[in-house]
Amino acid sequence: MVFLPQLPHNNKEEIKHMMTQKLVKLFSPDSVAVIGASNSFDKLGYHVMKSLVGHYAGKIYPINLKGGKVWNLDSYASLAEVPGNIDLAIIVVPAALVPETLHQCGGKGVKGAVLITAGFREIEDSQGGVLQERIRKICDQYEMPIIGPNTSGFANIAFGIDASFTSEFCELEKGGVAIISQSGGLCHLCGFLALHQRMGVSSLMSLGNRLNVGFPEAVRFFIEEDEATKVIALYIEGLDEPRELLDMARSLRGKKPIVAYKSGKSAKSDSASKFHTGSLAGNHEIWKGAFRQAGILEVTSSEELIDTAKVLDSCALARGNRITVLSGQAGPGIIAADALEAYGLSLSQFSAATKEKINEYLPPIVIRTNPVDMGPVWYNPKAMFDILNAVIEDEGTDGVIFINLYASANLSLASAMAEHIKNIDAFKKPVIGVITAPPGVWDDGIKRLDRKKGIAILPTPERAAKAMSNLWKANLLSARGK
Amino acid sequence: MVFLPQLPHNNKEEIKHMMTQKLVKLFSPDSVAVIGASNSFDKLGYHVMKSLVGHYAGKIYPINLKGGKVWNLDSYASLAEVPGNIDLAIIVVPAALVPETLHQCGGKGVKGAVLITAGFREIEDSQGGVLQERIRKICDQYEMPIIGPNTSGFANIAFGIDASFTSEFCELEKGGVAIISQSGGLCHLCGFLALHQRMGVSSLMSLGNRLNVGFPEAVRFFIEEDEATKVIALYIEGLDEPRELLDMARSLRGKKPIVAYKSGKSAKSDSASKFHTGSLAGNHEIWKGAFRQAGILEVTSSEELIDTAKVLDSCALARGNRITVLSGQAGPGIIAADALEAYGLSLSQFSAATKEKINEYLPPIVIRTNPVDMGPVWYNPKAMFDILNAVIEDEGTDGVIFINLYASANLSLASAMAEHIKNIDAFKKPVIGVITAPPGVWDDGIKRLDRKKGIAILPTPERAAKAMSNLWKANLLSARGK
Repeated sequence: MVFLPQLPHNNKEEIKHMMTQKLVKLFSPDSVAVIGASNSFDKLGYHVMKSLVGHYAGKIYPINLKGGKVWNLDSYASLAEVPGNIDLAIIVVPAALVPETLHQCGGKGVKGAVLITAGFREIEDSQGGVLQERIRKICDQYEMPIIGPNTSGFANIAFGIDASFTSEFCELEKGGVAIISQSGGLCHLCGFLALHQRMGVSSLMSLGNRLNVGFPEAVRFFIEEDEATKVIALYIEGLDEPRELLDMARSLRGKKPIVAYKSGKSAKSDSASKFHTGSLAGNHEIWKGAFRQAGILEVTSSEELIDTAKVLDSCALARGNRITVLSGQAGPGIIAADALEAYGLSLSQFSAATKEKINEYLPPIVIRTNPVDMGPVWYNPKAMFDILNAVIEDEGTDGVIFINLYASANLSLASAMAEHIKNIDAFKKPVIGVITAPPGVWDDGIKRLDRKKGIAILPTPERAAKAMSNLWKANLLSARGK
Repeated sequence: MVFLPQLPHNNKEEIKHMMTQKLVKLFSPDSVAVIGASNSFDKLGYHVMKSLVGHYAGKIYPINLKGGKVWNLDSYASLAEVPGNIDLAIIVVPAALVPETLHQCGGKGVKGAVLITAGFREIEDSQGGVLQERIRKICDQYEMPIIGPNTSGFANIAFGIDASFTSEFCELEKGGVAIISQSGGLCHLCGFLALHQRMGVSSLMSLGNRLNVGFPEAVRFFIEEDEATKVIALYIEGLDEPRELLDMARSLRGKKPIVAYKSGKSAKSDSASKFHTGSLAGNHEIWKGAFRQAGILEVTSSEELIDTAKVLDSCALARGNRITVLSGQAGPGIIAADALEAYGLSLSQFSAATKEKINEYLPPIVIRTNPVDMGPVWYNPKAMFDILNAVIEDEGTDGVIFINLYASANLSLASAMAEHIKNIDAFKKPVIGVITAPPGVWDDGIKRLDRKKGIAILPTPERAAKAMSNLWKANLLSARGK
């Protein structure tokens, strides 16, 4: 933890409590000042205002030296002139002005800040590092938590604030995944993937240079303090003190699943990620082992990170590796079966009761063993739903991949299936649906498949199989810690 | 080849020529009869009509016993009553009526048929196989090529006909990829992926039971006869006579790239795919070697099939494995570099001229080695474009991954970049763009990045890296055949 040792207090627990309280206010502020707010489209201060105005329900104070209206709100020439309290300051002024700005924040009693401004430790010019040390001392002086510098900001979707320069994050659906990215670019990539995939997000943020809020602080916050968060998704480039994150994850093991995507595997990309200081940064094999020991589930691509977080948020864990494939179309069922075996899962055997239920509905002309070709009951959503339930009840099955491709020709079937799922409590075993349709055909219907029903939708059979294997690995990692 | 040996002719070349001429008419018909056309939404004959009416410019003859109007067109009680010639018959009547229907088609001089009806060799009941033999003989008698039975049909996007029961295929963008799928389900999965990804398609089809048009016939047709097709994408479950396809591919090697996704890798899924007859069907290692020898590029997922076909259609092949990553955001550039190395590619070294050009634009504060952090020229699309061109000119670079994430805040930059690309001839080395935006933000702009410019857009850095590795493998496979 970067922050604590440098504070003047003696009682670490007390400081931790105070810091946590400040982080709560930072992430769920009642009032926000935007320092460098602007009416000019070319300025980041414009886009931060765009993310807030009309979306955020708390008080917004634009700070702008010129005064006048900014985004139709009265602006203030300085923080000191703001009449009320300020929980969060979002700072977009040039780097040279940041020290003075932070003093003003401290003086005003701001609870925490998002420092979007870049030009600190991340630049090659050593003056960047000097400036970063300078502002670190100022933040220490005021005991003020800072996201950044060199961050794209954060969005707390569950609470209702987008404190970033990307207003599209306001469109993210509410859910249980907290995305914590070292890089602003990956934060955006993951956010855009989440939007395209309708993944439910609690919060998303980029940590940037991690002045005093790094992975350990952020992860602990979302595990211990943020009720909306059910799953933590991390993008890590390199860490100065990897042990802090790993020890913290181990100590909180089993509380909320943590999924991590670590880059810098190759020598060149590691050099590009500019992390030469952390002892564990360079050797990916060591990272793999360390993640496993800490109970962190490692993934190997940005899409796998989002897919896995999505199923962890929506579905039960897979208590074993025996999976059933039910498919309205034979071909996609076959490729799901292939992929499951490739990822170390096996196809479940059915009990007598399950066989009976399947035989009740499916004629002997099709494959009734796993993968099950549901073609003949394609026009009978009730039958498909009954077979799905029978398989979930079967003790020999630990999870189900449920595949249906809908075009406009069978929209009514898709809707009938959605109605069935709407009326259940929740599947008690993981169900990953590959319920695919052309753009625009069934967007609403897919939306109606509520993530509270224990089912998550992924775009292809292979990605569903990979995500199912991660639900099984997450279960193993979670159990190992108990 | 299933068809030829059973024809009564002696001159194989002559028959082949005649069959090819018939296939040309089948895939590009001037007139179509829909046998089993219907006004009832619950019937496949309704959806086949929906795919044609308002989309297909040729003559449409609905055939329906009840007569009257079907989809507001005059219907005919039988084929014989149709006044004009019929190039293509699309058949959706019950299996028992198919023999008589095919006799009518033969009698009318129909050039070819799409037999959507199922219930033949694919069912467990041995009567299905018997019926299939019966209709095979009828087709032989009339020398009539048949797609199916048990097919979802085809769509020739380049010509302008959707002869399937899925009208959404009409929305596919025109391009150079012919998708030939054994399974109707995979045909739909690939078609939907193509729609979501804006992949340009020439034709797409499912072969179904392959009565007399199988992979060899279809692949040969799209390589030799269909000018719109530049790339062939195959989904294969199993083949009775794999040698025919492999020999044919080898003989036409280097003409158009063939990409194949083969399922049935595991024992269970192989059994599910119901192919026990082909000697090569069960052992995937043998398939792998056979594909390589035939110059067919093998892929291992449905998304990789579409991604690879897309870049093969749009981009030049990668003449080597030295790749440059240019990224507007550092993090995504780093994960691209990681993925490239994981897929056996390497990061290129820059020549003095390239370094000079990069140094002209980029300040020393950022990484100017590969991967290049283009952050400082993010607001200068001309500079990004100049650096891109310098890298392409560099003899040490065989391909470029060009990453830019755009939110509404930088839409004007995205449009400026699109304008630059619009005005070039075409990149002479492969450029894969990861140009990502939230839904709705830049859909039009991405559309304007014409595939004729030698650039293809993929959704993530990792998928771009995988596709680039396939552009290199395709080059090796193509060169080996010469």
